[in-house]
Amino acid sequence: MARFEPRDPNFEERVRESFARQTLMGTIGARLSLVSPGEVEIELPYRKDLSQQHGYLHAGVVTAIVDTACGYSALTLMQAGAEVLTIEYKINFVSPAVGERLIARGRVTRPGRTVTVCAGEVFAASEGGEKLVASMLATMISLRGEPPI
Amino acid sequence: MARFEPRDPNFEERVRESFARQTLMGTIGARLSLVSPGEVEIELPYRKDLSQQHGYLHAGVVTAIVDTACGYSALTLMQAGAEVLTIEYKINFVSPAVGERLIARGRVTRPGRTVTVCAGEVFAASEGGEKLVASMLATMISLRGEPPI
Amino acid sequence: MARFEPRDPNFEERVRESFARQTLMGTIGARLSLVSPGEVEIELPYRKDLSQQHGYLHAGVVTAIVDTACGYSALTLMQAGAEVLTIEYKINFVSPAVGERLIARGRVTRPGRTVTVCAGEVFAASEGGEKLVASMLATMISLRGEPPI
Amino acid sequence: MARFEPRDPNFEERVRESFARQTLMGTIGARLSLVSPGEVEIELPYRKDLSQQHGYLHAGVVTAIVDTACGYSALTLMQAGAEVLTIEYKINFVSPAVGERLIARGRVTRPGRTVTVCAGEVFAASEGGEKLVASMLATMISLRGEPPI
Repeated sequence: MARFEPRDPNFEERVRESFARQTLMGTIGARLSLVSPGEVEIELPYRKDLSQQHGYLHAGVVTAIVDTACGYSALTLMQAGAEVLTIEYKINFVSPAVGERLIARGRVTRPGRTVTVCAGEVFAASEGGEKLVASMLATMISLRGEPPI
Repeated sequence: MARFEPRDPNFEERVRESFARQTLMGTIGARLSLVSPGEVEIELPYRKDLSQQHGYLHAGVVTAIVDTACGYSALTLMQAGAEVLTIEYKINFVSPAVGERLIARGRVTRPGRTVTVCAGEVFAASEGGEKLVASMLATMISLRGEPPI
Repeated sequence: MARFEPRDPNFEERVRESFARQTLMGTIGARLSLVSPGEVEIELPYRKDLSQQHGYLHAGVVTAIVDTACGYSALTLMQAGAEVLTIEYKINFVSPAVGERLIARGRVTRPGRTVTVCAGEVFAASEGGEKLVASMLATMISLRGEPPI
Repeated sequence: MARFEPRDPNFEERVRESFARQTLMGTIGARLSLVSPGEVEIELPYRKDLSQQHGYLHAGVVTAIVDTACGYSALTLMQAGAEVLTIEYKINFVSPAVGERLIARGRVTRPGRTVTVCAGEVFAASEGGEKLVASMLATMISLRGEPPI
């Protein structure tokens, strides 16, 4: 993985402050477990009230945490004062979201002044180790004052 | 839009029963507002505890309802006893998810024995009308007994 | 479909001039068959030397013409002097690319100052009519002098 | 990267034979440079007649070689007699496709009996090294006799 130099030394504080303003992450019980330059990790303990019809965590929940991890991985490399917005993403679901908790990892593939491309994975973690649940490829945009879309 | 003939006359009952088993839809307050052959609609009233950092409904929530609408639109055309699973989707976010409520519409683009392709849109509805929030292109798979992935 | 008002009355000339600079479209024998505000159509007669291993037109060729149709549909709505670049796309292949010719249709879903979202379809045309081959959802960016990525 | 055990010891011969039947790869001058279990690499020397309007290699060409690399990476892990078909993919373009040649690398993220998920990258190679041009996330399907879509 490429190593990145953050433009804003307060990147972690900025990410944690923005995460705290997201009510959804708190509502579902997700927490930021890692914030480093170009990489962010989010953990979500399993909860029965977030399931789809087979009892697995719902694809929308899996998507929400890895979208958030990708978006904040992009934000770690943006300049002070910038905000991040998701333009789009694509996600493949490869195994059921079961286990004690999910771990979503987002990382920057290609940082840019305006557009940043990120990749993310979600793993189901239990005593037996980690298993890949989903892979994401996402496009983020940096906002400075005015919305671009 | 193409007109489809359902293979199972009880398609609506089957979709509503599966929807009821999804705890996430109930947890966020979403409801099925239309179930017809090849097309499903889901409504979600705005709720402050489902927001991202700017106060809009979180992309993950927008995604969850349109994924669900697309998946069930595919299920309406599957044979009795089949279940539907999301293989993957891609979604573009084109305007903020604000307003009184969101309406997600999923429809089948191409039904298939194994793989069904769906398109979906999310609109923000208020007194002033509807505004496009997001567009999805999704791939669903029909399960009959054993998981394909 | 939404109706769009072009900002540049010379949009068609601009699109045709840019298309002519693309060597790939000429190399594979594709031609612009429609240029209207927010919508562009490209036709490609079948050619045996553009096939994949089963003799159908290769997915990359199908993708190339609908990417081009989407990109130019975005360009029709951009200001004079702007250029268009593909940020990303997703495409689903739903039936084999056979028949006498392919028709790719790209249209703008959501125009924007910087980012434009487009949808596209490819149809296989023969005497029996048109059959859907592929669906695309694409993100285009407007360039004015400096590359954004 | 995960290590995979091929089910068919003749996987390389099968991939090379299928590649040879693709007329498009020959038409654009692409060649198979690596075939190993779960990973395939394709090289394409720059050619002026495959460009988009700015003189870079066209997005459709970039897509064609990495789609092919991903598809064949999936085929290396399929059983004897199986064929591979692309269901869908998403690709992000992150820098211009310039340089002496492109290298497309496809690898399996999650093999499956029916559905295989792959990731791919395209690099522009020149004396100065390699630069990332595009990232792909793709879904492949294994065919045994009858088409699934």
